[in-house]
Amino acid sequence: MNEHAGGPPMINAFDVAKLGLLPEATQALIRRRQRVMGASYRLFYEEPVHLDRAEGVWLFDLEGTRYLDVYNNVPCVGHCHPRVVAAVREQVGRLNTHTRYLTDLVVDYAERLVATFSAGLSQVMLTCTGSEAIDLALRIARLTTGGLGVIVTGNAYHGVTAAAAEASPSLGAGVPLGPYVRTVRAPDSYRDNPATMGEEFAARVQAEIADFRRHGVAPAALLFDTVFSSDGLCTHPPGFILPAVAAIRAAGGLFIADEVQPGFARTGSAMWGFQRHRAEPDLVVLGKPMGNGMPVAGVVGRPALFDEFATRTRYFNTFGGNPVSCAAAMAVLDVLRDEALMQNAATVGAYLRAGLIDLARRFEQIGDVRGDGLFIALEFVRDRASQTPDGRLASSVVNAMRRRHVLISASGIHGNSLKIRPPLPFAIEHADLVLDALAASLEEVI
Amino acid sequence: MNEHAGGPPMINAFDVAKLGLLPEATQALIRRRQRVMGASYRLFYEEPVHLDRAEGVWLFDLEGTRYLDVYNNVPCVGHCHPRVVAAVREQVGRLNTHTRYLTDLVVDYAERLVATFSAGLSQVMLTCTGSEAIDLALRIARLTTGGLGVIVTGNAYHGVTAAAAEASPSLGAGVPLGPYVRTVRAPDSYRDNPATMGEEFAARVQAEIADFRRHGVAPAALLFDTVFSSDGLCTHPPGFILPAVAAIRAAGGLFIADEVQPGFARTGSAMWGFQRHRAEPDLVVLGKPMGNGMPVAGVVGRPALFDEFATRTRYFNTFGGNPVSCAAAMAVLDVLRDEALMQNAATVGAYLRAGLIDLARRFEQIGDVRGDGLFIALEFVRDRASQTPDGRLASSVVNAMRRRHVLISASGIHGNSLKIRPPLPFAIEHADLVLDALAASLEEVI
Repeated sequence: MNEHAGGPPMINAFDVAKLGLLPEATQALIRRRQRVMGASYRLFYEEPVHLDRAEGVWLFDLEGTRYLDVYNNVPCVGHCHPRVVAAVREQVGRLNTHTRYLTDLVVDYAERLVATFSAGLSQVMLTCTGSEAIDLALRIARLTTGGLGVIVTGNAYHGVTAAAAEASPSLGAGVPLGPYVRTVRAPDSYRDNPATMGEEFAARVQAEIADFRRHGVAPAALLFDTVFSSDGLCTHPPGFILPAVAAIRAAGGLFIADEVQPGFARTGSAMWGFQRHRAEPDLVVLGKPMGNGMPVAGVVGRPALFDEFATRTRYFNTFGGNPVSCAAAMAVLDVLRDEALMQNAATVGAYLRAGLIDLARRFEQIGDVRGDGLFIALEFVRDRASQTPDGRLASSVVNAMRRRHVLISASGIHGNSLKIRPPLPFAIEHADLVLDALAASLEEVI
Repeated sequence: MNEHAGGPPMINAFDVAKLGLLPEATQALIRRRQRVMGASYRLFYEEPVHLDRAEGVWLFDLEGTRYLDVYNNVPCVGHCHPRVVAAVREQVGRLNTHTRYLTDLVVDYAERLVATFSAGLSQVMLTCTGSEAIDLALRIARLTTGGLGVIVTGNAYHGVTAAAAEASPSLGAGVPLGPYVRTVRAPDSYRDNPATMGEEFAARVQAEIADFRRHGVAPAALLFDTVFSSDGLCTHPPGFILPAVAAIRAAGGLFIADEVQPGFARTGSAMWGFQRHRAEPDLVVLGKPMGNGMPVAGVVGRPALFDEFATRTRYFNTFGGNPVSCAAAMAVLDVLRDEALMQNAATVGAYLRAGLIDLARRFEQIGDVRGDGLFIALEFVRDRASQTPDGRLASSVVNAMRRRHVLISASGIHGNSLKIRPPLPFAIEHADLVLDALAASLEEVI
């Protein structure tokens, strides 16, 4: 991890102290950016990438150099997908207003979306960002349960509103956890025993529930990303989350599934991450990939919860569910289906994982390869016996790959896992490029 | 105000108990909408408007009937303005990604935007919605002052995140105010003495500061909309907000100006509402009109505050400042300048106010006409002697005008003020349509 001048650490952050090493034009733009946007804004990589355009799985800089995008889940059907672009272009010239007028598109989209969930999860409220959706889900959970206590995983990231940030331990010590927020260590299929990992996770949740009770706080929700991506990715065995879900339910709290990362078919085995586990959340938070980059997000949930919320307050989000964002979101669902991208994620993801496991035979530093579909983590360790995380190696590899024009990042508490999360139209040939670049990068930096 | 089935009151809300009175097709769509989006969503008017397209100051329903838009400040340069549409169409096919890569557009836009502020307010952080911007401003204020206390006006609305909602008394008793939120009655130029109104407002702020101190709470901020639109609109005399701003400063708190309503030249006399008063906020919240409907919002502020925030935490908003929203926002600034819309707001607003004052000679129920530029309130009272608010008359007039295809709404604690807030390319001929429709509506309903 690099330390930003004066700020808390962030994985794969550009270090402004090294500004002088960059090309003149890049330095100038970064200086302007810092002057007008301030120090909270961070850039990726030792040498930030200056982008001009994008298409499919490719990003292009100002000189026309292309970079393979192995990191961005937002453009889930590919950057500037022609059908999404056409949908936005049509709608933006026709109507873009809010939900206090009747419009067909938002209703049509809401119906299409909830049809991808089980019958119990039949309503959706639309926001603009995942942070707003997390914030709304927490409001609904606290209001409908009458409880305040929220349990999250140890390195979770759930967003940037005050309520989301105070439930996001990955933001670091500078952002205190809320007084009614408790953390539990996330499951870790590399270090835990997979056979007992789920029960152990549930026991940790149970302990926090007990601690809440001891403090006179009723639990409102257990909230986690169903692939635990910020905690380092944990996807197998399917079903391991069920005991923890049962524990929060037994305590009168809700299970909120954060699907911002695994959602929209990325895992290859299901449209939603919780479906891989045959779990049934009370509330589901959707975000990033929903509109392929157009701001749209939402909360899907049980009507009884939304009804209870509605007896207390109305909900209006001026841009939430606007027709332009809905047009993009509808096109995303169309493309996912017509281009069979879930199947593609499964096929290409399996091919890429196999290639990475092959690579692990050559490099002792690769401790583990795990994931599902096109969400894969490759964990670097000092050695396999100790399993000691090696965040420095991950950082070196990320930057070596960037020099080879392959854009990737790292994740996990120790920043030692490569986070492989490309747009879903990623093909076998692109997987081969990743494998080649990774092998070359490892040979360079080890 | 209509009561939504089981829910809290909202001005000008459609009453679902009257669903059976609507055309069959409208009923069907509303039923689908309720089934899939739930009861928190509300519609405007006794007979909701079902929209298909929009252009300039006109909205069109599915039958092609056109409605004059006298209410929406979001499409500030007009619905589907060709330059905004062209900018979005170009950028959405080129690149739409986040701020951890370098892109020119977000920096170019940020510089253009802050150039409309005084030199001290030289930085901006970008979000997607005004709610997110309010939430961020409160985080920054609380972190940099070390205080928790926030003072807002009695019927303020600031947004829907947990932190914004608990500082939004207009959401009603179902949404409790935060433990560190206090309200003060907003200035009321109709009932207060304009000469002493500012000092009296400051005295109320001072009293809450003292009460905070008595409870051991340090004040973080005084937050208000600089035209007090949810409180019923109060724009004159310029300068009346200054004593209250001085009071919060003296107590170590910040002044946060909510410019979601008055911002982007609407008042005709300044780009920003606080500039009308020659006030200098610490933080300024921008929202709705910023991207003419594309989701973009932000916080403008003093660099020292943003620097202090950055020592504690990074800030990343995936869709915040995305290139497509920035392209729209840049086009908005271009159109405001090239079509001289601030001047137009001043000219047409003055014409419309004069016409409304004329109308007040015929109708004793019009107690007051006030505002600036194209933000005007017309207040209905039982009689001028008592100044008793007449929310029922306002509601009848809003719906009578809707039947005449003029879309407007009401505001204020008693819902008795017409809220006249059209897109800024509103012309004299449109003002005449409003005056005619209002006269006819008043003759019908009184």
